[in-house]
Amino acid sequence: MNEPFKIGIAGLGTVGAGVVKILQNHADLITKRAGRTIELVAVCARDQKKDRGVDLSQCEWVDTPTDLAAIDGLDAVVEVIGGAEGAAKDLVEAALDKGVSVVTANKALLACHGFDLAGHAEQGGAALYYEAAVAGGIPVIKDLREGFAGNGITGVYGILNGTCNYILTTMQETGRDFADVLKEAQDLGYAEADPAFDIEGNDTAHKLALLTALAFGVKPDLDHLPMKGISHLTAEDIAYAEELGYRIKLLGIARQVDGKILQMVEPCLVTAGHPMADVSDAFNAVCIEGDAIDRGMAVGRGAGEGPTASAVVADLIDLARGHHVPMFGIHSAQMKDAQWMDADEMYRGFYVRLTVRDQPGVLADISAIMRDHNVSMEVVLQRGHDTGGPVAVTIKTHKTRRADIMAALEKLAGIDSVVEAPTCLRMEGF
Amino acid sequence: MNEPFKIGIAGLGTVGAGVVKILQNHADLITKRAGRTIELVAVCARDQKKDRGVDLSQCEWVDTPTDLAAIDGLDAVVEVIGGAEGAAKDLVEAALDKGVSVVTANKALLACHGFDLAGHAEQGGAALYYEAAVAGGIPVIKDLREGFAGNGITGVYGILNGTCNYILTTMQETGRDFADVLKEAQDLGYAEADPAFDIEGNDTAHKLALLTALAFGVKPDLDHLPMKGISHLTAEDIAYAEELGYRIKLLGIARQVDGKILQMVEPCLVTAGHPMADVSDAFNAVCIEGDAIDRGMAVGRGAGEGPTASAVVADLIDLARGHHVPMFGIHSAQMKDAQWMDADEMYRGFYVRLTVRDQPGVLADISAIMRDHNVSMEVVLQRGHDTGGPVAVTIKTHKTRRADIMAALEKLAGIDSVVEAPTCLRMEGF
Repeated sequence: MNEPFKIGIAGLGTVGAGVVKILQNHADLITKRAGRTIELVAVCARDQKKDRGVDLSQCEWVDTPTDLAAIDGLDAVVEVIGGAEGAAKDLVEAALDKGVSVVTANKALLACHGFDLAGHAEQGGAALYYEAAVAGGIPVIKDLREGFAGNGITGVYGILNGTCNYILTTMQETGRDFADVLKEAQDLGYAEADPAFDIEGNDTAHKLALLTALAFGVKPDLDHLPMKGISHLTAEDIAYAEELGYRIKLLGIARQVDGKILQMVEPCLVTAGHPMADVSDAFNAVCIEGDAIDRGMAVGRGAGEGPTASAVVADLIDLARGHHVPMFGIHSAQMKDAQWMDADEMYRGFYVRLTVRDQPGVLADISAIMRDHNVSMEVVLQRGHDTGGPVAVTIKTHKTRRADIMAALEKLAGIDSVVEAPTCLRMEGF
Repeated sequence: MNEPFKIGIAGLGTVGAGVVKILQNHADLITKRAGRTIELVAVCARDQKKDRGVDLSQCEWVDTPTDLAAIDGLDAVVEVIGGAEGAAKDLVEAALDKGVSVVTANKALLACHGFDLAGHAEQGGAALYYEAAVAGGIPVIKDLREGFAGNGITGVYGILNGTCNYILTTMQETGRDFADVLKEAQDLGYAEADPAFDIEGNDTAHKLALLTALAFGVKPDLDHLPMKGISHLTAEDIAYAEELGYRIKLLGIARQVDGKILQMVEPCLVTAGHPMADVSDAFNAVCIEGDAIDRGMAVGRGAGEGPTASAVVADLIDLARGHHVPMFGIHSAQMKDAQWMDADEMYRGFYVRLTVRDQPGVLADISAIMRDHNVSMEVVLQRGHDTGGPVAVTIKTHKTRRADIMAALEKLAGIDSVVEAPTCLRMEGF
């Protein structure tokens, strides 16, 4: 039998404790699979006395995360503290510089500093693994770095935030409005007390930045990642989308178009009948398009103790087996600065919802403005004609340049009969 | 830069030529990803003069596959000849014995001789990789050996044969009958002239035997794998299933139940709305259930040049990176003989279609026989009452022990008013 693979864990919250549980409960199985024992040597967490449901009596406890990196003979450190700066970053850098491999679930850290950290890993001769950082229950980092390594990747996109998908699915199933469902999700613990990071798209953006880097060999770049969340969506939007044959999903999308890369996060209309449309509740899904595989999709739980800890343990087994893939699949010296595509230049079908005064000639005004901006309308729905109050006009367009529809909407927002800011979502044509 | 990774390829059919194309077209990308050049040194194929759309002028040509294993300095051999015996088996054994790693797409060889070959690989110190053997466009071997290695796997099941899924999807969409759609699939080249291997379930069984072995650490065993194909299904079955809220899919299923393993191949009713129900045409899908991830699903093209060659090249890149995972994820000495569960002991809902004479009392007879065998019926549909000829009675049962429903059907088949052998499909309850 080979030498044990010695690890330290920084952070014993849900994920950290979950990793220890798997390592202890499946010790025999993991030893068989890794070809050696994975031995937890040291931990760092705030409260040594707290009962986490795992036996930590054999571990060395250290006071600060960077102390873990200083322990002699460690093969890898698990960083599950979180945060793009501070203790997590210090630990990861210190470990990599010393040649100790790192397994982390920290998407914020990697999205902000991934390229630099890849350099630290290379200089230290250590590996930086992070399957848990994106869609824990889906081995998408492994898919892009390994499973689809024979492909030129042309696109990667998906449902990357379980909280948003839970909210959208519940809105779909119950007809309730956003604020109402969010409140319930918070009460149930599915959404944070401060939900902005999830519902405004930041969490999805962090994950997408990593997928873009992996897919196209470019530096992760949050500055060229336009982002829109789901808080402006109404029960009406969900219902109209359904009537048109679509479901609304918050998607992170990265695509290669004419040598440039488009990456963005926004709610999109996905065709009912596409397997992604049926991905419900807190599940995540990732589609990958490649020149050899055509396209594939994976679905799984994105967050929570089990799936995230599973991803961390898989990384540890990989490392214990002696595997070592560069952070973004290629050496950082070979990564390029991307040519980013202006989202306004893309062509798509769009869904538009306008709230208008119910008076003669409104549709004629709308149609004229759309025509003047080269927007061709495929379906127009006007409901609630006899209610007296403002009514919704819903439009599905043919393929349109985004800049054109945006200009048309700006013009429309300015006319008297349009009483609210228009909602505009794009169709993802699969 | 590291030394080139030298390979030979045996077989230059669609897949073999596809591998060469990827290696040549993506040479730079693959070198970056693998950290070294993958160099095609030698090939073995029948006709040296045939134009395969790739440049093979720099390769050594050998006469018989085993000659490849004899070439000095090869790091790996790609076996894409096919067949469970003969040249393919001789080559794989010779290479492994000499310590040369093997990448193969040959599910028949591995399902029949996988355990022995794992021994050859271990004794020779070589790796045996076979991502292309099961659902080429889905990295399911990697998922089970690596990505989900932190899980105790409790189930793995899926749509593993693209031809069958194409036929079933077309039947679903067009309402046409099996024989008609099969004929068209043959004309289009989607089905073989002798389709039995696909439509009777053998191909699915070979793939499932490998997934069972990987999931549960047991020896692949085709002798304990009951198998039923799709050739007995009618347009009526598809339509009734849809009416009941299901789609019919040919599934390979392996599950751990009370310490025993159940594996079987048969057409099943999958709930519409489950993402697997929407997996259409020639796509494959695999669901994996694990104690940490809960459950996940992957969808992709299962066969064809691109997806299969992509899987072979990914394996080559893994090997060139120095990775080496045991064939079934653990050393063969640690694999167990499975305790197989008798399929008759499982509990499921069932779909039954009976063709009966349209005469008074038939339903009473059927109901009595079902009751006598502890089968509780949830839905009974009787259509075409006034046609005069035989009519269909379709039944959906509550959860029932399989042995009980089989006994009931045997009894039913013997009564006068039942004029054809009953069709019975199980529900897969997701």
